[in-house]
Amino acid sequence: MSTKEQLVNFFKNEFPQVNFTIEHAGEKSATIRKKICHEHLRPGGTVSGPVMMEVADTALYVAILAEIGLVALTVTTNLNINFLRKPSAEKDIIADCRLIKVGKSLVIGEVSIFSEGDPEPVAHATGTYAIPPVRSSESK
Amino acid sequence: MSTKEQLVNFFKNEFPQVNFTIEHAGEKSATIRKKICHEHLRPGGTVSGPVMMEVADTALYVAILAEIGLVALTVTTNLNINFLRKPSAEKDIIADCRLIKVGKSLVIGEVSIFSEGDPEPVAHATGTYAIPPVRSSESK
Amino acid sequence: MSTKEQLVNFFKNEFPQVNFTIEHAGEKSATIRKKICHEHLRPGGTVSGPVMMEVADTALYVAILAEIGLVALTVTTNLNINFLRKPSAEKDIIADCRLIKVGKSLVIGEVSIFSEGDPEPVAHATGTYAIPPVRSSESK
Amino acid sequence: MSTKEQLVNFFKNEFPQVNFTIEHAGEKSATIRKKICHEHLRPGGTVSGPVMMEVADTALYVAILAEIGLVALTVTTNLNINFLRKPSAEKDIIADCRLIKVGKSLVIGEVSIFSEGDPEPVAHATGTYAIPPVRSSESK
Repeated sequence: MSTKEQLVNFFKNEFPQVNFTIEHAGEKSATIRKKICHEHLRPGGTVSGPVMMEVADTALYVAILAEIGLVALTVTTNLNINFLRKPSAEKDIIADCRLIKVGKSLVIGEVSIFSEGDPEPVAHATGTYAIPPVRSSESK
Repeated sequence: MSTKEQLVNFFKNEFPQVNFTIEHAGEKSATIRKKICHEHLRPGGTVSGPVMMEVADTALYVAILAEIGLVALTVTTNLNINFLRKPSAEKDIIADCRLIKVGKSLVIGEVSIFSEGDPEPVAHATGTYAIPPVRSSESK
Repeated sequence: MSTKEQLVNFFKNEFPQVNFTIEHAGEKSATIRKKICHEHLRPGGTVSGPVMMEVADTALYVAILAEIGLVALTVTTNLNINFLRKPSAEKDIIADCRLIKVGKSLVIGEVSIFSEGDPEPVAHATGTYAIPPVRSSESK
Repeated sequence: MSTKEQLVNFFKNEFPQVNFTIEHAGEKSATIRKKICHEHLRPGGTVSGPVMMEVADTALYVAILAEIGLVALTVTTNLNINFLRKPSAEKDIIADCRLIKVGKSLVIGEVSIFSEGDPEPVAHATGTYAIPPVRSSESK
């Protein structure tokens, strides 16, 4: 298990280009926040789909690392996302992740994504991460 | 239907921040290429998942606009992606999209994503776009 | 909107071969129960995947019909299911559906599936239904 | 690797209730056929979604067992299906599966589903199966 502080340091060092804030991490869940800038927008004044996919993927990753420790090579194997409503161009994006299975080799979670202040989700995702097998020499 | 030239201009004007090349567009299919730079990489020297999701989404969008014309407000409603192999950090990413249904309100396609030069796909996606209904005043 | 009684009659008449009980329907949600028999099992004493897919699809359909009325021709356009744990061969399967978007032409929901008595889900699905457009002559 | 004959015997013994024919199996692919009867139909004279999900899942399973041998406990972890067109109530359903990754622990494939005689697919699915780890005593 990782604390929020360990996670914040991990992301600062390993993923300096990914720009988000961890609001909560632990108990098989995580909440992250992403500030929306001009570069994240699309015609019609909405947040781009790929930005929301990145936020969904990141929220899953944060919840998983909080649960299993800082296993950097844990990788996404599947992500399924439904886009539900047009996100606001002026509000932060908030992603709430809940892990629904933490297995030895696969972890599965679901993520609800919101424009801050609106209770109706703008997107919903489910994703699977694979945890690399521990080699015998590492397991000691 | 849009020509490749119309599509290139459309993306240059409407999505200047999305950086890719259209290799082919038409006949319910599209092939696009994305040059991979340092900002697209992840620990372990691989291309990030969100970059591949963006490429999948973009390849679908190009194939759809080639088929139905430049309907900018066409939006992704669902994207499902499986990550299959570690992409090369030094090769361009190539995405091949094939539309499997072009309906009046929904278009569905599948995308195979490759690291250039390797015949085994690094990811595979299926996605759905919704086409906004034509208002009566526009249909004349 | 349909009442539970209207839904029970609708399924008895239109889908006599689908065998399940509606425990709850309404407020953008539904809970259904399926009795598991020998024909639903697989080697290893577990409930087959297709049975769980059918239950997920049916729970969505019940929640949608409760919300929009008895529109029989509403059809599934996408279903994504993650299998999480081995269901019990001796327990009923319970599916809890929650609609996350009710639009004019698309309805999207998520379903958690349980073996009765176990709080950990055995599967989780998200699905999209398309509602056929109302023809002018019918909308009066 | 399993031959078509071994697969036919395996399904006859292990899954007697699943009713389909193997047309082809091998080279990371499989084609199966399902005869459509009254019990598989829905209002409007179409094949039910769950029948197509079962066919997709089965085609994946056949292709995988043809590739890795008769590992009965191999299980579906994810299935994503898009319903594209109304299948014919009078034609057999044909499912063509192609494996896109055969890993040590995960196998991923895609399936195109047809009403016999129509070149346009009625559905398209992608699915993931997990292969149980070989215990040391079995690997010798």
